[in-house]
Amino acid sequence: MSTAVNPDLLQERNRATFDPSQLTYFLYDGAEKTKRKRYIQNLAIQELSRMGMKQYATLSREEQYKQALQKHAYYVQTQQRLGLTDPHEKEHLFQAVLPCEASPLTLHKSAFVNTFAMLASEEQKRKWLPLMKEFRMVGTYVQTEMGHGSFLRGLETTATYDPRTQEFVLHCPTISSIKFWPGGLGKTSNSCVVMAQLISNGQKLGMHSFLVQIRDLDTHQPLSGVTVGDIGNKFGYHGNDNGFLKLDNVRIPRENMLMRHSQILPDGTYVKPKNDRLMYGGMTSLRAGIVGVVSQRISMAVTIAVRYSAVRRQSEIQPGGGEVQVLDFQTQQFRLFPQIAVAYATTIASRSISDYYQRVSAQIEKGDLQELPMLHALSAGLKAYCGWICMDGVEVCRLACGGHGYSQASGLPKIYVDTTPACTYEGENFVLMLQTARYLIKCCRKVAEGEALPEVMNFLKVNPGEKSRLDAQLFMPQLIQAYRHRAGRIAQEVSQKLQAAISKGVNAGQAWNSNSVQLINAGKAFSQLYLVQDFAQTVQSFGGKLREVMEALWRLFAVSGILNALGDFMLDGYISSQQAAMLQQRLLDLLSELRPNAVALVDAFDFPDAVLDSALGRWDGQVYEALYDYSLRSKLNEKQVLDAYHKYQRPFMESQWKQNKAAALTSRL
Amino acid sequence: MSTAVNPDLLQERNRATFDPSQLTYFLYDGAEKTKRKRYIQNLAIQELSRMGMKQYATLSREEQYKQALQKHAYYVQTQQRLGLTDPHEKEHLFQAVLPCEASPLTLHKSAFVNTFAMLASEEQKRKWLPLMKEFRMVGTYVQTEMGHGSFLRGLETTATYDPRTQEFVLHCPTISSIKFWPGGLGKTSNSCVVMAQLISNGQKLGMHSFLVQIRDLDTHQPLSGVTVGDIGNKFGYHGNDNGFLKLDNVRIPRENMLMRHSQILPDGTYVKPKNDRLMYGGMTSLRAGIVGVVSQRISMAVTIAVRYSAVRRQSEIQPGGGEVQVLDFQTQQFRLFPQIAVAYATTIASRSISDYYQRVSAQIEKGDLQELPMLHALSAGLKAYCGWICMDGVEVCRLACGGHGYSQASGLPKIYVDTTPACTYEGENFVLMLQTARYLIKCCRKVAEGEALPEVMNFLKVNPGEKSRLDAQLFMPQLIQAYRHRAGRIAQEVSQKLQAAISKGVNAGQAWNSNSVQLINAGKAFSQLYLVQDFAQTVQSFGGKLREVMEALWRLFAVSGILNALGDFMLDGYISSQQAAMLQQRLLDLLSELRPNAVALVDAFDFPDAVLDSALGRWDGQVYEALYDYSLRSKLNEKQVLDAYHKYQRPFMESQWKQNKAAALTSRL
Repeated sequence: MSTAVNPDLLQERNRATFDPSQLTYFLYDGAEKTKRKRYIQNLAIQELSRMGMKQYATLSREEQYKQALQKHAYYVQTQQRLGLTDPHEKEHLFQAVLPCEASPLTLHKSAFVNTFAMLASEEQKRKWLPLMKEFRMVGTYVQTEMGHGSFLRGLETTATYDPRTQEFVLHCPTISSIKFWPGGLGKTSNSCVVMAQLISNGQKLGMHSFLVQIRDLDTHQPLSGVTVGDIGNKFGYHGNDNGFLKLDNVRIPRENMLMRHSQILPDGTYVKPKNDRLMYGGMTSLRAGIVGVVSQRISMAVTIAVRYSAVRRQSEIQPGGGEVQVLDFQTQQFRLFPQIAVAYATTIASRSISDYYQRVSAQIEKGDLQELPMLHALSAGLKAYCGWICMDGVEVCRLACGGHGYSQASGLPKIYVDTTPACTYEGENFVLMLQTARYLIKCCRKVAEGEALPEVMNFLKVNPGEKSRLDAQLFMPQLIQAYRHRAGRIAQEVSQKLQAAISKGVNAGQAWNSNSVQLINAGKAFSQLYLVQDFAQTVQSFGGKLREVMEALWRLFAVSGILNALGDFMLDGYISSQQAAMLQQRLLDLLSELRPNAVALVDAFDFPDAVLDSALGRWDGQVYEALYDYSLRSKLNEKQVLDAYHKYQRPFMESQWKQNKAAALTSRL
Repeated sequence: MSTAVNPDLLQERNRATFDPSQLTYFLYDGAEKTKRKRYIQNLAIQELSRMGMKQYATLSREEQYKQALQKHAYYVQTQQRLGLTDPHEKEHLFQAVLPCEASPLTLHKSAFVNTFAMLASEEQKRKWLPLMKEFRMVGTYVQTEMGHGSFLRGLETTATYDPRTQEFVLHCPTISSIKFWPGGLGKTSNSCVVMAQLISNGQKLGMHSFLVQIRDLDTHQPLSGVTVGDIGNKFGYHGNDNGFLKLDNVRIPRENMLMRHSQILPDGTYVKPKNDRLMYGGMTSLRAGIVGVVSQRISMAVTIAVRYSAVRRQSEIQPGGGEVQVLDFQTQQFRLFPQIAVAYATTIASRSISDYYQRVSAQIEKGDLQELPMLHALSAGLKAYCGWICMDGVEVCRLACGGHGYSQASGLPKIYVDTTPACTYEGENFVLMLQTARYLIKCCRKVAEGEALPEVMNFLKVNPGEKSRLDAQLFMPQLIQAYRHRAGRIAQEVSQKLQAAISKGVNAGQAWNSNSVQLINAGKAFSQLYLVQDFAQTVQSFGGKLREVMEALWRLFAVSGILNALGDFMLDGYISSQQAAMLQQRLLDLLSELRPNAVALVDAFDFPDAVLDSALGRWDGQVYEALYDYSLRSKLNEKQVLDAYHKYQRPFMESQWKQNKAAALTSRL
């Protein structure tokens, strides 16, 4: 393959008005850390290549699982060899080793060990953590059942205490109670933390966690009473053995109930947890992490699509003027540039929500739980909202690559199937957004009752007759105010509807359900407001040319967000017809303004080619060579004439021949 | 597996207010034809089952290719055995045999034989059609190249006439000119129709078609000068060997140029075609067909999602009230019911556009080309618009099934990856929608010049100050008028912008590009207007209870369409704030109104379980049994302990053991 950079791509880089490395340093916390990231990632990429790793998209599902195991082992061992302790450096390494490839060992630490550490007593930790950390116990976290997901209380699996033997009997009584979906459960894990309905002395005591061994630690065979396996092919996540687990009266010692918060005494007496709210922490941190994951996915997808659109030439703008880069088409800019903005907005939000989580965690440690509801509402809303816009954005990028986007060579299908589960796992998005809405409604009630709100929630004090002062200059405060007004109006409106229904005698649950479409909208508007504000704040921290470019990108984010939900902003007359028409025109201007910097903006994400794993997104733009190279490696090309030809095609063809089948066939027409 | 129908699903069917078989008969043209459809489909499903066909989602890509060949052979032979001639009956059979499974032989007839028949001279047809029809020649249509898609003139492959030998030399001069993507090209076809730049006597004469043999008809080995193969794994279409083809100075006889419209004489003299417009026909018919395909896909997806939502119980609406069917959540209705409406609207549109195509074809036969531009604009716009909404709708349905929607057991990933290519093939959607817009702009100019328009285009005569008279009764004419006004306003606005730019001296190509975002919007608004009107007309042909239900469904389609693009309708003050708020409320009312009939509305599509191929969408609602059954068949479950454990996992685990590795390991904790 040619080593030269495609001239169109070279020219794009030369015409950028800012230095993308400034932005890269912002993303990776400075030049030194960027250098270190590159060192770690290049090392891993080179070593894996020498180890003979195959391109993911050329492997069968079974091979993908096998290679994921091999890669994850390399990840852990390399982390140890390099002595990495900084979580960011670990993430960089992980990204280089398993880019958008689900590993069956991922949940061992993030869900199994961490959940155990959070829920186990000190004694339990002393006994088991060392075995977990040195991978004698390999595990996962097992909660969802075939028939039960978001609604924890609905789980059917039981853990019945037997005081005679001082054991729990774990049991899945029905087909719908079979544990289903946990990553790494099917073939990889020998242990797990299982959520089950605790029963003692005939009393149902709610959901509790139990450490359950499911396979022999030596032979890896399933233990008696345990039926465990892989759940079969999925949309993606092929490298992961998401599993099912059927427990048939499996007995575990009393000490295997995780007893930090609540306990069963030897005689079966139940000791209640002191404070439920402490349980929030884990989920909140995971959700903040998901914002980071999805922001990375859209960043990868838009890098691929923008680079490819700079290289791809297709159709003429002026007849006879020659084929132009597809990036010059307004419709292509309209599809892709807002995705660049989404990539930066969500990346920035993922950092701020993580910081916020750290701050609130520190307060909680000191016993101050005041900000917990706000953190919970915000992290739930952002997880859902960012999940949606990033998932949609990845598909927009894929479709913007035309036919080639459909090939696994583009890397885009893999990114999509790796992004979309974020809308379901760790809290289904609609369920989460309604939790965010619940917080908003509580705050609306406080406004009505004249109580004080946290500073950031003051947008809920809506001025009903307010008109936007937005003009063609698109000043930041006025754009932000539009989002504040809209988020406040929607929340207040639905809050009043709820009140009205309840005062008419509708019960609270029914009233909530009958307004949930608008509640979702309130949650979205709140989350979007946060993104717009947070992105604006970051942009203001930049200087010089970079600030100019990022301000334009921010404006594009804000303006396209308004236009995509224009009815929301016009409904109460806040945005006028003239302003709406102006915004439509200014959006097109912003696309032109950003055009020269599109490639530099995605280059700044600094993804190595091996991470993008894309024929279309290559740094050097040699897309057709890479596509052709990928094609040649198709398994169907291992033979010129496939067995299927002899077995099915040829007999079928012959069955259609009207003439004597024995007649000599002309091999050339 | 239990043979009983899930009681929730049974109850749904009992509470429906209309008889779904009435609707089924409408969809399949009467009770007799419905019966015949069921007979054909059941026969095929039973025979294939006896032949031992495996569930698609459990197979590797190579197995999917093999099985698709086997099934396609069955399809052709069964069609012959049953003596099917009615195209609908053939479609029913095909659906039962290869539901959402790409077959490598599909393009043989639809693209190879049909294109050949359209472009070849009578003499050529006499010589070759019999060989094609009896599958001595198995072929495909080869147009796109790695570097060239929608822009036909950009193709690089050349066909240079050599008068000395009276042959054409076919050649791909660059990597970007390698033919890429045609279905069935990689391993299956031995022949193809190739589009190439004709060169004779040193003159470039534009794109022409050539019949090219690429493999030996007997050994199936590629011929000399031919490099051909599969392009590798894709998002879906695994059963199809989409291929690449590199022609290296391949010589074919002069008579292999398809000479119905233009010719090369033995001395190299070029004879021009008489009428370019006749070429339109094929594409237009294909695009009308695509509307049918995507409407079927969304119908399948929504059948699965609605049935599953009736069976799935999750969370409580009233605390302590027990878990409810997820179909009772307003948010779930909000996601799914508009998709039922999309399914019917696009199904109805696919029928009317096909009828229109037949009518215009008959006119063309008589030499009347008057309606051709309108047919072209409409079929392009509907192909694009229906492609978009059906693709999006399928994903909405998948996500509405939560985690299980991500499993291939749900059937939904397969439907999605089978639907999304419709946005790219046979004309990329943005390119097509701009063609529709070009027709709209021409019509706008006619309005400006006082010329007459076709009746259906009169909505372009916009009354600028018009206000909607829509009220809570949601009368049909007023809803339709809203779409007429909006489509007209957008088209006129962008037409004026184009004129303004041109009169300022901007060249036409640049002016077009700078307004293309709004041109796309104009094309969408036009296509949506057509759907709304066409659906309304059909609804009015129904009577009794069915009409009531279908009117509500139509209203949901119309109202949610307005709300999804509310800014478009409010921008010029056509819809007021009060009307917008009213529509938001009425949308929620329509969801409640349709709730009792949701299952009946999808049952009416009459998809056999084998066609849906979904654990979640089964007629009997035994979803968990089916999911579990699917899981057990995962290839990873063939062994309890995989080789990958011994090869990678165990050595990795041991590398992490701190204690003496030789120490006996406790197999149980």
